[in-house]
This record gives sequence, C-alpha cells and structure tokens, in this order.
Amino acid sequence: MGSKKEIKEIKEIKEIEGGVCAAAGFKASGVRCGIKGPSSSKRDLALIYSERPCAAAGVFTANRVKAASVLVCMERVAGGAVRAVAANSGNANACTGAAGLEAARRMTETAAEKLGIPAQEVAVASTGVIGVPLPDFSVIAAGIGKAAEELDVRGNRNALEAIMTTDTAMKEGAREIEIHGKTVRLGGMAKGAGMIHPNMGTMLCFITTDAAITRPLLDKAFRQGVNRSFNRITVDGDMSTNDTALIMANGAAGNRLLDAEDGAFALFALALEGLCAGLAKQIAQDGEGASRLVTVTVEGAASEEDAAAFAKAAASSNLVKAACFGADANWGRVLAALGRAGPPFDPACVGIAFSGGGMQVQVCEAGAGLPFSEHDAKAALSHKEIGIEITLGRGPGSAAVWGCDLTYEYVRINGDYRS
Amino acid sequence: MGSKKEIKEIKEIKEIEGGVCAAAGFKASGVRCGIKGPSSSKRDLALIYSERPCAAAGVFTANRVKAASVLVCMERVAGGAVRAVAANSGNANACTGAAGLEAARRMTETAAEKLGIPAQEVAVASTGVIGVPLPDFSVIAAGIGKAAEELDVRGNRNALEAIMTTDTAMKEGAREIEIHGKTVRLGGMAKGAGMIHPNMGTMLCFITTDAAITRPLLDKAFRQGVNRSFNRITVDGDMSTNDTALIMANGAAGNRLLDAEDGAFALFALALEGLCAGLAKQIAQDGEGASRLVTVTVEGAASEEDAAAFAKAAASSNLVKAACFGADANWGRVLAALGRAGPPFDPACVGIAFSGGGMQVQVCEAGAGLPFSEHDAKAALSHKEIGIEITLGRGPGSAAVWGCDLTYEYVRINGDYRS
Repeated sequence: MGSKKEIKEIKEIKEIEGGVCAAAGFKASGVRCGIKGPSSSKRDLALIYSERPCAAAGVFTANRVKAASVLVCMERVAGGAVRAVAANSGNANACTGAAGLEAARRMTETAAEKLGIPAQEVAVASTGVIGVPLPDFSVIAAGIGKAAEELDVRGNRNALEAIMTTDTAMKEGAREIEIHGKTVRLGGMAKGAGMIHPNMGTMLCFITTDAAITRPLLDKAFRQGVNRSFNRITVDGDMSTNDTALIMANGAAGNRLLDAEDGAFALFALALEGLCAGLAKQIAQDGEGASRLVTVTVEGAASEEDAAAFAKAAASSNLVKAACFGADANWGRVLAALGRAGPPFDPACVGIAFSGGGMQVQVCEAGAGLPFSEHDAKAALSHKEIGIEITLGRGPGSAAVWGCDLTYEYVRINGDYRS
Repeated sequence: MGSKKEIKEIKEIKEIEGGVCAAAGFKASGVRCGIKGPSSSKRDLALIYSERPCAAAGVFTANRVKAASVLVCMERVAGGAVRAVAANSGNANACTGAAGLEAARRMTETAAEKLGIPAQEVAVASTGVIGVPLPDFSVIAAGIGKAAEELDVRGNRNALEAIMTTDTAMKEGAREIEIHGKTVRLGGMAKGAGMIHPNMGTMLCFITTDAAITRPLLDKAFRQGVNRSFNRITVDGDMSTNDTALIMANGAAGNRLLDAEDGAFALFALALEGLCAGLAKQIAQDGEGASRLVTVTVEGAASEEDAAAFAKAAASSNLVKAACFGADANWGRVLAALGRAGPPFDPACVGIAFSGGGMQVQVCEAGAGLPFSEHDAKAALSHKEIGIEITLGRGPGSAAVWGCDLTYEYVRINGDYRS
C-alpha cells in the first residue's frame, strides 16, 4: 500500500533477473514427460532443487476439496525441511482417490531417489484436469529422471513453462537486498489465470531464497506476503483444489541468521511481499479473458482486514467487472458492492474515483454522485491498467486488491465444451 | 423441497389467476407519471391498496447501503398496519440524501391522503437509477393521484408493468387454499432480473392475502417463505440497495384467525412458500442474459442451511454458470464450488448428476468421476431448464437454489456504456 513502502523498496530492494534460480544454490528444470498427452509437445514436469538443506514454508488452498498432491505437499512442508519440488501440469491429481495419493507420494520418492535426498525433503504440486487418473507411473518416473539430469542454474524458464496450463504470460520475478553486509536474493515463479480452462485451474507459486532465516520467521514472513498478494487477487472468485504457494530458504547468502523480528527481518519480509505482489499482479493481468488489470484500493477503513474485504467485494463483483470491460464509470455498482462486503461503514462518507493513464476522475463524494465528465471517465477507464480508488473516512485501514474485467472472452473460454 | 410437499401442494393448494388482486379486498393500478423520463410512454408508478386494515410484514435488502425508499418502507412496516404500497420504477431513490428521504415520505403521505388513510399505513418502494434525484414532486404527486383514481380489482397487470425496469417477463402468481371451510387466497407480483441494467437493479415483491392471521405468524410464515425462495435465487451475486418483499393480509376471507402454529397455519405457510418460490424462479429464469434456468438441489447435508449454502455456492460460481451456458457436464467445477461453500462435508461421499429434458446423467459418485456419455450429458444440459443434483450422504438437510447461466449477453448488457 502506502507510498512510504514504495520509497523504501526503491531504495533498498532491487529487481533482478533469474526467477526461481536467482538465489544462490538453486537449480531448476522443466521437461516434457507426456502428462499433457502423447500428442502434446509442451513441457509438463518441473523440478526445483536446492543443493543445500532448506527451511521451508507453504500456504495451501482453503478449499475443502484438496488435490492428492496438495495433501502430500502439506505433509512434506509440515516437516519443515523441503529443499526440492516436483510439479506437473496437465493433470491436477485431484478427486483421484487412493491411487492419486499413492502417485503423489511416489513422485516425491522418485525425485528424492534421483536427487539423493530423503523423500521428506521433496514437495509435490499438480495442476490440470480434475478427476482424471495420472498416466502410468513409469511415464512420470522417466520424466522426473530426465528433469533431475537437466537441473541447471539457468533452468528457471524451462521450469516455469512446465507448470503453465493456459497461462498466456510467463510469471516470474526476483529481488536483491543486503542484509548485514551480505547480498540476499529472492526469486519466484507462478502460474494461474483463474480456473481458466474447462477443468483447468490452480495458482502455483514457488519462491526460493538464499537468505539464512529460521523456519518460524520464514513462515511468518511468507504468510504475510501471501496474504497481501495472492490472497488479494480475484479473477472469478473460484478457489482451486490445488492452490499451492511454497518457499524454500537455503542460507547460501551467508548472512547472519535472521532469528528475530528486527530491521533486517522487516526488509526481508518487505522484499518477499513485493515479490509475491508482483507475481500476483501478473496473475490478475493474465486473468481469463481479461482485457484490463483493475486495481481496487480502499483507504480509511477501520482495519487492513476490513479494507481488503471492501476492495475484494468491489473487485469481484461481476457488475463492476463488466463495467470495467465497458469502460463505464458505474460507481453505483461499486457502492452496492461495498454494502454487501460485510464490515460496517457509513455510506454517507464514501468517496469513489476511477483512474487510468495517469488521469483520475472523482465520481462520488460523501456517498452521493458528483457531476463529472463521462468523456474523461471513459477515457481513463479505457486503459489496460485502471484503478478504482475508494475512501471510507473511518480509520487507518488500507488495502489494494488486483482483479480484471469480465469479458466475452471469459464466457467463451469457460463456456467452451471440454473436448 | 422433497416430493411430500409437492403432493400436498397438488392436493390442497390450487394455482389461480389474478396476481396481486387475487385476494379479496385488494385493488391495484399502474400509471405513467413520467419518472422514466418525459420521452418514455411506460407505466412507472404502481399503487396497491386494501379496502380493509391489514397485518403486514416485510423483508428488506441486507445491503448496508439502503435506498431512501427502503428506509421509509422499513419504518412503515415496523408499524405493522401497512395496507397500501406506492412503488415507482425509473429511479431507485438511492444515494439521494435527505431530499430522497423527504421524497419517499411525501410519496406515502400523498398516497395516504388520496386513499383517506394514515400515512403510517402506506409503504413505498423504488427501483431504477441510483444516485439521481427524483423529478419535481408535483410530477410524482400527480401520478399518485391518477393511480388512486384507477385502482381496480383487475389492476394487477398494470401495477406489475409499472414496477418493471428491464424485466423481459411479467412475474406474478396466486394460490387458493381452504382454511376452516373458508376460501383463502394469496397473490403476488415481483420484478427483478439481477442488477440487470447499468445502475438498474432491485428485486421487488408484493404479496397480498385475504387470510385472517396475526402479525407475528404472518411475519414468521413470510420470513420462512422468502428465505426458501428469494433468498435462494442467484443471478450475479450482487445485492441491490432496494430489494423489498412485502406482504399484506386483510382478513377478508373470514377464516377463523390464524393465531397458532397448527395445521391450518402450516398449510398457509406452505402455500405462501410455494407462491414465493414460483415468483423467485421466474426471476432467475429472467436473469440478465440468461439462456437457461439452472436448479441446483443438494440432499444429504447436515442441515437445510448447509444444503442451501452448498447449492448457492454451485449456482453462483461463474465457472459453473459458464459451463451451463456451454452445456458442459463440468462436474469438477461443481465439486470445487462445494469445497469453498463453507460447511464441512466429505468430498469422498459426494455424488453429482446433471439433468434436463427428463434425462439425468450421473457423472460423479463417491467424490470420483464416473464414465458417462458426454453426448447424453450435453443433450440434457442443452435444455432451457436444467438441473444439477448433488448428494452429500451426510445428513437430512436438503435445499434447492435457482440460478441461470452466464452468457455473452450478460456481459453485453452489463458492459454497455450507460448513455
């Protein structure tokens, strides 16, 4: 949110290349193993590996229907020492019963064997069709073996390709900070564009860092970062059975161990939050059929949680999303969405503005409409990246949520017959 | 839900004509007074009136942003003796400040004067554009006067026309039952198709009955009826600032006063619920851009509330709605929607079937996919009225929710520029 942070980021946090391989000691690979079908030439199996032991943390889908791969991944992450991930696209390994669980476990065991580490240190993730069994395990085993051989410190893009389904853009990023005189890097990759394709879905995010940090602090920083990024994007309000966000920290940077909530930890957490937010925005921008990235900011709420709830209600309203598609400054819909968000507020204190291309048009003040230029508003909302700025005049809480517009293309993609 | 009720209804509850004028002692009218603009020739002001005093009850939008007309209507209904309603279309009288409240009060006072009853016995409702002041009150006063003169026992259709905005179908219904040897009638009309037009919205429902019933029991029966009907339809998940459901009971049937929760009351409540459900389904069917009515039924939930939550989650999922548009038996999306509905359940016990045109295709059993004929499923889902039947095998709770598909037309309607 606030500009203070942005300034800090500019000063102390540098954007760098390399994605999931930016941090020292991490290798990645992505191969075609055939899970996407014999006819597909696309990569569909990714491996990420740290040469050194790691502290790890994860955040998983809140959906009560969890994929087999998610259930196994949760077990591994609970162990806290995950240093490798085997991930596949083309099949979600969800609603696949005991066989699915067995396959997910064997994926970690096979990768562990190839990497010469305990299976407890290997996580697994899947994205793709729900309710369809994985191909014969020999196919997957061969793919994992190939991926292990191809592990490379420049393998980040191949790995990213291998977890993409119908994403139209590659989503990765990396940051560099200095902690106690040592250069610390964080990098990550993500896939997802809402449950975009018939039966396809899932947000996957893998973050690596060479920071030396205790597991409890890594977990704390990651949960906050995910909460302020991936938990603040909305494409269609649907929650996948496979959503997984994972972070591995291998300490290769050699910084003094981050074991207290001091300034160095705050900087690390801020860099991590910025990295997650950057990936999250890329997901919203690549939302199914989206033609515009919509950033809804709420200020003056009683708390950050309230602000996020209001922003999410507006960003996820079909009517608001459709109005964004039509570049229509339809503030009545925004106000109505706030009214059903849940937290209390005084409608008579609400202000609403629409922005785009550096132009902002105030359309509602003190809960009532303002005379405004429809022409200017339409011009602002016709840009690829637009904003809805809401003020509640109630308290210090602020939050931003990233979404996209609702388009014909969304309906076409999701209305299409699967075959 | 269950078939027991349906049989009862067939046996004891008769569908009749007359809508809001079916019950003895009620008159209605609808006139053009100019709120929809000088260029519009459409009726835009409705009056409903009971010659006798009434017991009344109402259910209003849960949106924190409530229209001035809703706030005044709530005051009147709290009095418990509402026997007339003045309702306008073309302007929601929402986000209109003190002037809006004043206008809403004057609408009730003007109608009261013309009808020769206290203003406390007149309710008001509005639907239309948000944030725009009503025209000069002299215009509205003239319309109310005209409507009072035209009150007629066959005025139900004119009144219904006068509350329609972009509805494409007239929504009314009536029922006849016998209580203690007396014929009792209930009738109603409704408008609404989701917040269908830019800044247009609102579900309005007015029910009249000549039953003699105490206000507490009328309130109880109405709340349950509304909860099982209007609260179980979903068009786009957006909640209007103006939603209003009102019932007036004038006792003209001369039945022994319903003052206890006995069999006679149960029959009245059942007839009322059926009437509300019939109107609610008409609203879902007329949903913005809808090409299919989708009935989602859940059985085997721990409670009726849980069942309704599961059914609503599935019926309101953009992905499920888009799949219905594409006649795509995409059960993975249904299961994913159940998983985020909230209440606990065992995914391994879920069964899902799709139906249409009298054909039902089971696609998921025990939480896993079944082999099924895509051709049959597509054929079933290609009908105008389709069903998604979900079984959870957990308890006795069941519920039905009515929704519609998500179409290109929805995006076109709501993406259109207002002017």
